Amino acid sequence: MHQTAAIGCDWGTSSLRAYRLGGDGAVLERRETARGIMAVEAGGFEAVFEDSVGDWLDAAAGTPVVLSGMIGSRQGWREAPYLACPADIAGLAAALLPVDLARGRRIWIAPGLSHRDSGGTPDVMRGEEVQILGAQEAIGDAPALVCLPGTHSKWARVRDGQVLGFSTHMTGEVFEAVRGHTILGRMIDAEAWDEPAFLDGLVRGRAPGGLLGHLFGVRAKGLFGELDDRTAGSYLSGLMIGHELDAALGAENADTEIEGGTAGEICLIGAGRLVELYAIALTHLGRDCRILPADVVAVGHLRLARALIDGMA
Amino acid sequence: MHQTAAIGCDWGTSSLRAYRLGGDGAVLERRETARGIMAVEAGGFEAVFEDSVGDWLDAAAGTPVVLSGMIGSRQGWREAPYLACPADIAGLAAALLPVDLARGRRIWIAPGLSHRDSGGTPDVMRGEEVQILGAQEAIGDAPALVCLPGTHSKWARVRDGQVLGFSTHMTGEVFEAVRGHTILGRMIDAEAWDEPAFLDGLVRGRAPGGLLGHLFGVRAKGLFGELDDRTAGSYLSGLMIGHELDAALGAENADTEIEGGTAGEICLIGAGRLVELYAIALTHLGRDCRILPADVVAVGHLRLARALIDGMA
Repeated sequence: MHQTAAIGCDWGTSSLRAYRLGGDGAVLERRETARGIMAVEAGGFEAVFEDSVGDWLDAAAGTPVVLSGMIGSRQGWREAPYLACPADIAGLAAALLPVDLARGRRIWIAPGLSHRDSGGTPDVMRGEEVQILGAQEAIGDAPALVCLPGTHSKWARVRDGQVLGFSTHMTGEVFEAVRGHTILGRMIDAEAWDEPAFLDGLVRGRAPGGLLGHLFGVRAKGLFGELDDRTAGSYLSGLMIGHELDAALGAENADTEIEGGTAGEICLIGAGRLVELYAIALTHLGRDCRILPADVVAVGHLRLARALIDGMA
Repeated sequence: MHQTAAIGCDWGTSSLRAYRLGGDGAVLERRETARGIMAVEAGGFEAVFEDSVGDWLDAAAGTPVVLSGMIGSRQGWREAPYLACPADIAGLAAALLPVDLARGRRIWIAPGLSHRDSGGTPDVMRGEEVQILGAQEAIGDAPALVCLPGTHSKWARVRDGQVLGFSTHMTGEVFEAVRGHTILGRMIDAEAWDEPAFLDGLVRGRAPGGLLGHLFGVRAKGLFGELDDRTAGSYLSGLMIGHELDAALGAENADTEIEGGTAGEICLIGAGRLVELYAIALTHLGRDCRILPADVVAVGHLRLARALIDGMA
């Protein structure tokens, strides 16, 4: 097989994705299983890891191995403390947590990132920071926003190789809770989709009135025949993404305004319908964006592996 | 018994409250049952009504009878269309919907109110408008905000006897959905209460960042030991009430700013722990407020009954 330059492993709550990486950053081999940390008993992580990539370890002695994601949380293999923003590749590499395998090999777990907003409230990410490292290779040094849409969407502000700060929005999870467990659920056909209604909701979500007020608007529009079961869910989705974008885009110049920084590029990481919706929403708001696949995390693993070696040299 | 000047009935989703009223506005007799409209089969409203206050009708022939609340909704006895804001007592009285009882007596159902915000999104209330009519008697003509905290909190802007506009916030219902059906629920002891945490959440709720971002802050503060199961629920409650107040107080001058109107009085209607929390929150924000009991609705019924008679005269 091709020469392995690094082995990366994105080990989250519900899945494990392993990458065997070439020196040029190519993914030589990719494995994915449902053995996320919630599916592994305490003490069982090394066995699952050996089972997943033991043959790669056998075949590539001395190759650096970097793990990221919830595997480094309190509920994971070993807890890797959060590194505070602003943070860059050197800081993340220096904070890699060594884990010695029974076979006598040392591997490394990436730390998460933490950030406190201007009011002092903390925020955390774990795993996304390595996806962002990967995205930074594509973005370069210009100010940019990196967004990872999801149950808990992450928005990171990056520039000059640094993650300046970030915020997490419970958009996906609150959407499900509102649709499933409030009066609004009764007026929604979850299978239906209507893009004009999505865009209407998006625009409304960026207007004054507050999310809690805007949510009742979904019901009132139903009473007045302005939404029905085929459009209400799309409107609600747009409304909540609109609120997320309003907060995230409002904060984008927080770290650059002293330099008069203009709005930078927006980079979405992910795949499928949800990322598409974010792209539609951003385009509607007049913002260009590029989409990178979640596997960009492997580029981050390779960068960390190289920084680790450089740091040891 | 004392002379009955009017009979009022606040007939909502889950309860029926009937008032026999004296000419001075005193509640001569009050009855409350759990026979809200959800507990009555279609076609059964007149029988329940007769059962509830038939003896009052017998004893006070010719006395005006005014019903308010969900009894005037599509799911109620007869649908009384919403009256658009701005609206005053004369408009509400003119929109009373007559219902003729089998016994040959005519009674009246109050319309709800509707309002469209500056973006054209509709809002509705049904029943609260008669509580507000009652509160206006205490407030007078000065600009004021009337707040009815609850599952769906209402904030009405009043002045010179008019309801200028209003907004509804799904604070209570979304709080329950978030606490019961998101990751935040796991870190909350629903029985615990901590006022400093409530006030911290309140202040945070008025800061930038958006509700969806602020919600994740509850989790992050938990990870950093800044909230625990005894404080997280109070913080969450403060956060959400803070968001509601931010939206409602931000809108308070919407109708008065052309006249340079200053912040008016805030009047809370209701009883119990929730209204107390709103009063604590408003006081913490430096705003005085008065609290009126929910039975102030009877004053509204009496005012409507009188306006009805005046209109017929």
